[in-house]
Amino acid sequence: MEQSNIEDLLRQMTLEEKIGQLTQITGDFYSDKAEDRTGPMSQLGLDDEQITNVGTVLGVVGASECRRIQRQYMERNRLHIPTMFMGDVIHGYETIFPIPLGLASSWDTDAFEEMARVSAEEASVSGLSAVFSPMVDLVRDPRWGRVMESTGEDPFLNGKFASAMVTGYQGEPGELQDHFNKVAACVKHFAAYGAVTGGRDYNTVDMSEQRLRDVYLRGYHAAIEAGARLVMTSFNTVGGIPATGNRHLMQDILRDEFGFDGVLISDFGAVKELISHGVAADESQAASLSIHAGVDIEMMTLCYMHTLEALVTSGAVDERLIDESVLRILRLKNELGLFEHPFRGADEAREKEIVFSTSHRATARRITAESLVLLRNNDATLPLKASQSIALLGPAAQSPDILGAWSWRGRTDRAVTLMQGLRKFASADGESMRSHVKTTEERCDYFVPTESVIAASVELAKHADVVILALGELSTMSGEAASRSNIHLPKGQIALFDAVHKVNPHIVVVLFNGRPLDLSGIEAADAILEAWYPGTEGGAAIADVLFGAVNPSGKVTMSFPESVGQIPVFYDEDNTGRPYEQAPNEKYVSKYLDVSNYAAYPFGFGLSYSHFSYGSPVVSVSGNGFSAEHPAIIRVSITNDSEVDGVEIAQLYVRDLVGEVVRPVKQLKGFQRVALAAGETREIEFELDEKDVRYVHLDDSMRSDPGDFLVWVAGNSRDLSNPIRLHLE
Amino acid sequence: MEQSNIEDLLRQMTLEEKIGQLTQITGDFYSDKAEDRTGPMSQLGLDDEQITNVGTVLGVVGASECRRIQRQYMERNRLHIPTMFMGDVIHGYETIFPIPLGLASSWDTDAFEEMARVSAEEASVSGLSAVFSPMVDLVRDPRWGRVMESTGEDPFLNGKFASAMVTGYQGEPGELQDHFNKVAACVKHFAAYGAVTGGRDYNTVDMSEQRLRDVYLRGYHAAIEAGARLVMTSFNTVGGIPATGNRHLMQDILRDEFGFDGVLISDFGAVKELISHGVAADESQAASLSIHAGVDIEMMTLCYMHTLEALVTSGAVDERLIDESVLRILRLKNELGLFEHPFRGADEAREKEIVFSTSHRATARRITAESLVLLRNNDATLPLKASQSIALLGPAAQSPDILGAWSWRGRTDRAVTLMQGLRKFASADGESMRSHVKTTEERCDYFVPTESVIAASVELAKHADVVILALGELSTMSGEAASRSNIHLPKGQIALFDAVHKVNPHIVVVLFNGRPLDLSGIEAADAILEAWYPGTEGGAAIADVLFGAVNPSGKVTMSFPESVGQIPVFYDEDNTGRPYEQAPNEKYVSKYLDVSNYAAYPFGFGLSYSHFSYGSPVVSVSGNGFSAEHPAIIRVSITNDSEVDGVEIAQLYVRDLVGEVVRPVKQLKGFQRVALAAGETREIEFELDEKDVRYVHLDDSMRSDPGDFLVWVAGNSRDLSNPIRLHLE
Repeated sequence: MEQSNIEDLLRQMTLEEKIGQLTQITGDFYSDKAEDRTGPMSQLGLDDEQITNVGTVLGVVGASECRRIQRQYMERNRLHIPTMFMGDVIHGYETIFPIPLGLASSWDTDAFEEMARVSAEEASVSGLSAVFSPMVDLVRDPRWGRVMESTGEDPFLNGKFASAMVTGYQGEPGELQDHFNKVAACVKHFAAYGAVTGGRDYNTVDMSEQRLRDVYLRGYHAAIEAGARLVMTSFNTVGGIPATGNRHLMQDILRDEFGFDGVLISDFGAVKELISHGVAADESQAASLSIHAGVDIEMMTLCYMHTLEALVTSGAVDERLIDESVLRILRLKNELGLFEHPFRGADEAREKEIVFSTSHRATARRITAESLVLLRNNDATLPLKASQSIALLGPAAQSPDILGAWSWRGRTDRAVTLMQGLRKFASADGESMRSHVKTTEERCDYFVPTESVIAASVELAKHADVVILALGELSTMSGEAASRSNIHLPKGQIALFDAVHKVNPHIVVVLFNGRPLDLSGIEAADAILEAWYPGTEGGAAIADVLFGAVNPSGKVTMSFPESVGQIPVFYDEDNTGRPYEQAPNEKYVSKYLDVSNYAAYPFGFGLSYSHFSYGSPVVSVSGNGFSAEHPAIIRVSITNDSEVDGVEIAQLYVRDLVGEVVRPVKQLKGFQRVALAAGETREIEFELDEKDVRYVHLDDSMRSDPGDFLVWVAGNSRDLSNPIRLHLE
Repeated sequence: MEQSNIEDLLRQMTLEEKIGQLTQITGDFYSDKAEDRTGPMSQLGLDDEQITNVGTVLGVVGASECRRIQRQYMERNRLHIPTMFMGDVIHGYETIFPIPLGLASSWDTDAFEEMARVSAEEASVSGLSAVFSPMVDLVRDPRWGRVMESTGEDPFLNGKFASAMVTGYQGEPGELQDHFNKVAACVKHFAAYGAVTGGRDYNTVDMSEQRLRDVYLRGYHAAIEAGARLVMTSFNTVGGIPATGNRHLMQDILRDEFGFDGVLISDFGAVKELISHGVAADESQAASLSIHAGVDIEMMTLCYMHTLEALVTSGAVDERLIDESVLRILRLKNELGLFEHPFRGADEAREKEIVFSTSHRATARRITAESLVLLRNNDATLPLKASQSIALLGPAAQSPDILGAWSWRGRTDRAVTLMQGLRKFASADGESMRSHVKTTEERCDYFVPTESVIAASVELAKHADVVILALGELSTMSGEAASRSNIHLPKGQIALFDAVHKVNPHIVVVLFNGRPLDLSGIEAADAILEAWYPGTEGGAAIADVLFGAVNPSGKVTMSFPESVGQIPVFYDEDNTGRPYEQAPNEKYVSKYLDVSNYAAYPFGFGLSYSHFSYGSPVVSVSGNGFSAEHPAIIRVSITNDSEVDGVEIAQLYVRDLVGEVVRPVKQLKGFQRVALAAGETREIEFELDEKDVRYVHLDDSMRSDPGDFLVWVAGNSRDLSNPIRLHLE
C-alpha cells in the first residue's frame, strides 16, 4: 500500500479504532470457542466489539490458527485492517539453538544471522510477523536470570550480534514487504534492563547518563541502526523513571538521537505497572505517561483502551500523538505486506516441511558445536578416544532439559540428550559409541541425588576409563523471574562429584547452565566443557566436540566470577585512582582482602585442542599518523603450533590512556575467527578507526580525545602483553 | 584578625607562598633531626625553603611536638603565618569510642555530640586544630571495609549524626575562635565514596544525578549546614569524573548550591591520582583540574607546588582562583584564632590531665553500652545471673583488638578486654564476677583455632552454666583498603562454635566486627550480642549489658544480609513495577529463587530485656489538612509491658505513594529514644513537615508531590503494620 493510502486509512478511523491499534492481547481472546474467551475477556474488561479493533496479537502460532484468526478478524474489523501476530521467538522457533549467552561464545556473527534466518523461516511459515528478539541487554551480574538471554558483558560484541540477528530475521532492507520467510525484529529491552540492582529481576536500574549512553545503550543503538522495526520497553527504571513512561529515554534518545521511526511496544503489562511503580496514580495517568513517552503498543493491559479517549476529550493528550503511533503501526503492517497478504507466510503445508527440518537441525548442530567452551583440559584429557569406556553420570546425563528458558515452541521430547548424542556419535571409522557409554538406570536429581544413584554412579565410575559428569542448573533456574543469589552448582552435585572422584579421578565435567557459575567444588576435574543450554541438537554437538570431530573454539563473553562476593567482575571496568593490576600485592590498591580482582574465567577465554601463539603486533598508518582521516592498521601473525586444525578467536583490545571521562582499562574493538590448519601461520589484520575510540563525553557528544592509546591483540581479555602505543592526532 | 587584614596579608604573599598554603604534608618534614627529613623530602621533591611555605601539617600530634614545629615554622615563614595541624581523629582520640557504625546503633545524637566533644578536647590539647571527621558516606554494601567508619544506610540518620558530630567538634558557631578545646570538623568523603562498585575500596562510583542528590548527598549537606569548616574530596569517580577533579560536583553543587565557603581538601594523594585515574596526563593537568574544581588543599602530593606557578604564568590558571583558595585557608586559620594564638589548645600540662581521663572513659563506657545491639535472646538467656558459671571462649575473649580501624592514637594495651570487663564487673551486691568467669590459657586464633584450644574450650564449656563465645573479625579486616568479598565469620570460628555447642547448647555469642556479617553457622546460639568494635571501654560496657546493669537499646543502622549474594539489601529500596512484599510467593515478582528479599536483621532492628508494644498511631493536622503550612502531628502510645525498665527507639516511616520519580518503599523521617519504666505507657509525638517529604525531582529541584502518603511508627523498618494514610494538599 502507498504511504498516502495509509494516511487516508488513518483519517477514516474513529478514535476508538485508533486506540485499538495501540493495544496488544493474547490469542485467548480470539478462540473459536466462545467459552474460552469469556474468562480472559471479563478479567481484562474487554468486549467483542473492542477485540475487533485490537491491533496485534501476542503468542498465537500455527499457520492454521493464525489464518483462522486473521480471516475472522478482517471480516469483523470495519476497515478490514489486518491484525498481526507476534511471539517470543528468542533462540529458535522449534529448532532450538543454544541460548544467546551460549551462542555468543561462538563470536560468530554469521551464526547469529543464521540462527535468526532459520527462526524467521519457521516462525513466519507458522504465522508470525514479528519476533521479540534480539535481546541486547548488557549484563555484568550473573545472578540475573535473564543473563541466559543476553549475549554478555561487552557493548561492542552485543551490538555486532544484535545487528546480525536483525539481518537474519528481517533480511535486507525492504525485504519484509515480499519475503514472507522474514519477520520483523524487536530490539529489547530498552533500556539497561540487564543492570537490575543485585541481579534481582525487575529491580531498579540506576546509573549515570554518561554510563547509560556510553556502555548500555551502544548495543541497542547498533541493532536500531541495523534496521530493527520494533523496540520493546524494559520493566526497570532508568534514572528513577520507569522506561515505559520515560520521555527522556524514549523521545530524546530513542526517537530524536537514534532516529528510530519504528514501533515502540511495552513489555508485558509494563504500562499498567507504572501504577505499581508509583509514578502513576491510576490507569489514566499510566496511559498519559506512556503515550507521551511514545509507547505505541500497550501489551496485555488496557490503560490506553480504558482512558485514552477521555484523555483526548479532556485535552490532556493531543490526538496527534495517537495518530503518530497508529501511523507507525500501520506502516509496519504495510512494510510486512499484510494489507495485500494478510496471511503472509502462514502456510500449513509448508509449515510441516520447514519447521524442525533436517536441514535446520543440521545447521543447529553445526552452530551449537561452535558455542561450546572448553574451560579446562588438563593433560589433553579431551578429545576422548573411541576406545575409551565412558561412565556418563550426573543429573544432565540423560536429561532432555537442555533447551533453556525462552524456548517457547521448543520440544524437549525431540531434543538430543547428551546420552543420545554420545551413543549415536560415529567415529571416523563409522563405529558407533553405543557400547562404550554406560549410565545409571536411575535418573540423578539436580539437587538431592539419592544414595542409590550415587552408589550406582560410583560403581560405573570404578570400571570406566573416563567419567563424563553432566552437571548444571535446571533450565528453570535462569530466564525471566529466575534470579539466584548464589551461583554455585547445587550442593548435591558437588557431593556426587566427590563420591565419583574418589574412585576415578579422570573426570570430564560437561556443564549445562544459563549463567556464569562459581565453579567451586569441581576443582579436581580434568576437563570442563561449558555447554550452556545447547538446544535441540545439544547432545549431538557436544559429542562432536568431546570426541574431537569438532575442535572447540568458543570463548566466554561474560566473566565467570571466583565467587558471588566478587560480583560485578567484568573485563572492561573503569580505571581507578589506585589501580590493582600494577601492584596487586600492595595494601592501598582497589581490591578485596580475600580474593583477587580477576575472574575465574575472563571475558574472551576458551581453550582449543590446538595451541595458538601470537607474534608481536605491528601497526601501520598512512599519512601523518592515526587520525580521523587515517585509520591504524594492526597486523599480527598467529600460529597454530599444534597437530590439530583449529579455529582461534583473535581479539583486539584498546585502552585510551587519558580521557575527559575515566576510561575502561581495556575495551574490545575487533575480533576475528581465524581457521588455522595444524602448523599454519597466518597474518591477520585489524583496522582501528578514529570512530572506534569515540566515547560519550560529559556534554553527551560522541567523540574521541587525542592522545595515546595502548593496543593489544590476544586470545582473551586477561592475557595482554606487549601493547603497541598509538598516538591519535 | 580582621577579614581586611587577611586580605592585606594575601596581597603581601608571593605566588610561591600562596601555593605553599595550598599544600599539606606530614610531620616527617618537620622533624628536628635533619636526617629524618632527608628521605621523605627527596622522595617528594621538596626543599627546606618550600617547607616553610607549606600551609598545613598532617598527622603530627602531641602538645610538645606541635608547639616545637609551630614555633620553628613561624620563625622561618617570611610573613609569620602559622601552620595548622590536622589529623585522623574519627571515633575518639585516645579515649576510643565505638566505631561509627556501632555508635550509630545508639540512635543517640547526643552520644555523637559527646563523642566529638571529648575527641575535640583530647585532640586540641594535643595540638590539633582540625579532625577528619565526620565521615558521612552512605553505605549499602557491607563488603566495603570503610563501612565501619560510616553510620549506615540511611541518609536522614547519617545527616543527623554528622550534624551532631560537627557541633561536638566545633561547638556553637564562632566558638572555634576562642574555645581552644574545639576543633574544626571536616566532612568526608565528598561524594558518594560509600557506593564503590562491588564494595571494593577505591573502586568506581556510578549513579544517576537524581540518586546522587536525593540519597547520597543528603548527609553531607546536613553536615555542611551544621557548619563544618572543611570538606574532603573522595577517591572515587562520580559520573565518570574523579571527585577531586569534578567541577560539577565541587563548584555547582558544593559551593553554589550548598553554599559551602570553607576549605576543600583532597584525600591523601588524590590530586596526583587524577593521573592514575587517566583524566590527567601529568601533574600539571592534575593540578589544573583540581584547582578549577576548587580543591584548596592538596594532601601529600605536590602537583600544585610543582606546576601551579607555570600554569598561572601561561594563563591556564587564573591567579584569582589561587587567591580564593588561599583566602579560605587563611580565614579558617583565623577562625581558629591561630594568628593570635598559634599554639592554640596545645598544652603539655593539661594534655596529661585531659587525654584519656577517668571522666572521658566513663563517658565512653556509658555511650558504648548504648551502641550494643541484642540481635537474639531466646528464652531470656540474657541477662546473665550473677550465680552462673561462665566459660568465656573464642578469639575475641581476651583480645585487646577491640578498638577497630581508624583509632590512630588509641592504645590497645589500655583497652578493657571482654575478659577484663566480665571479671571486673560488680553485681548489685558488689560481688565481683572474677571467680565465675573461666577461659582458656591459650589464646584462640581468629582463623585457625588449634586443636588444643578447641579441646580446652570444650572442656571448660562442659562445666559451665553458660558459654560466652566471643567471635568476629580482626580489626584489620575492615577500615580503609580492607574490603572482603565474603562476609562470613571465619570458618575456624564456626568449627569452634560447633565443637562447643555439642557439649553445651547454652551459647551467648558476642560479636566484634566492623560490618554487617552473614551470620550463617551460628544459628544455634541462644543469644547474639553485636558489640562492633566497642573501643577503650568495650569489655566493661559489654559486661554492663550481659549482666543487665544496662538494658540494651541499640538498633542496627545497616541491614544484615542473609548472604553476600543478597547484596545490596537495604530498607529504603525503590519500589519496583513487580513488588515483592505484596506477593512474595508469586513467580513474576522482583525476587531471587533461593533467598527472600528481606535482611536477616533489618535496619532499625534490635532487642531489649524489656518488651514494648505500640498502640495505633493517630494523626492530627490543624487547618485544612497536611500542607506546607500545616505539619501533621503523629501520636502513638508505647507501653513497656515487661518488668524491666528500658529504652525503646521508636521510628517514624513514611511512604510517598505516587511521585514524579519512583519513591522508596519506606523512608525514615523521625526517631526517638524513649525511656520507659517497667509497666509504663507514654504517648510520644512526631511532627511531619511538608519539607520532610520533599525529594529531588528531575529538574534537580527539591520539592514534594501532593497526594497520599503512608505513615507508620514502629520498632524497626520491617515490622510495619497499620499505616495511617495522610493526604498532602
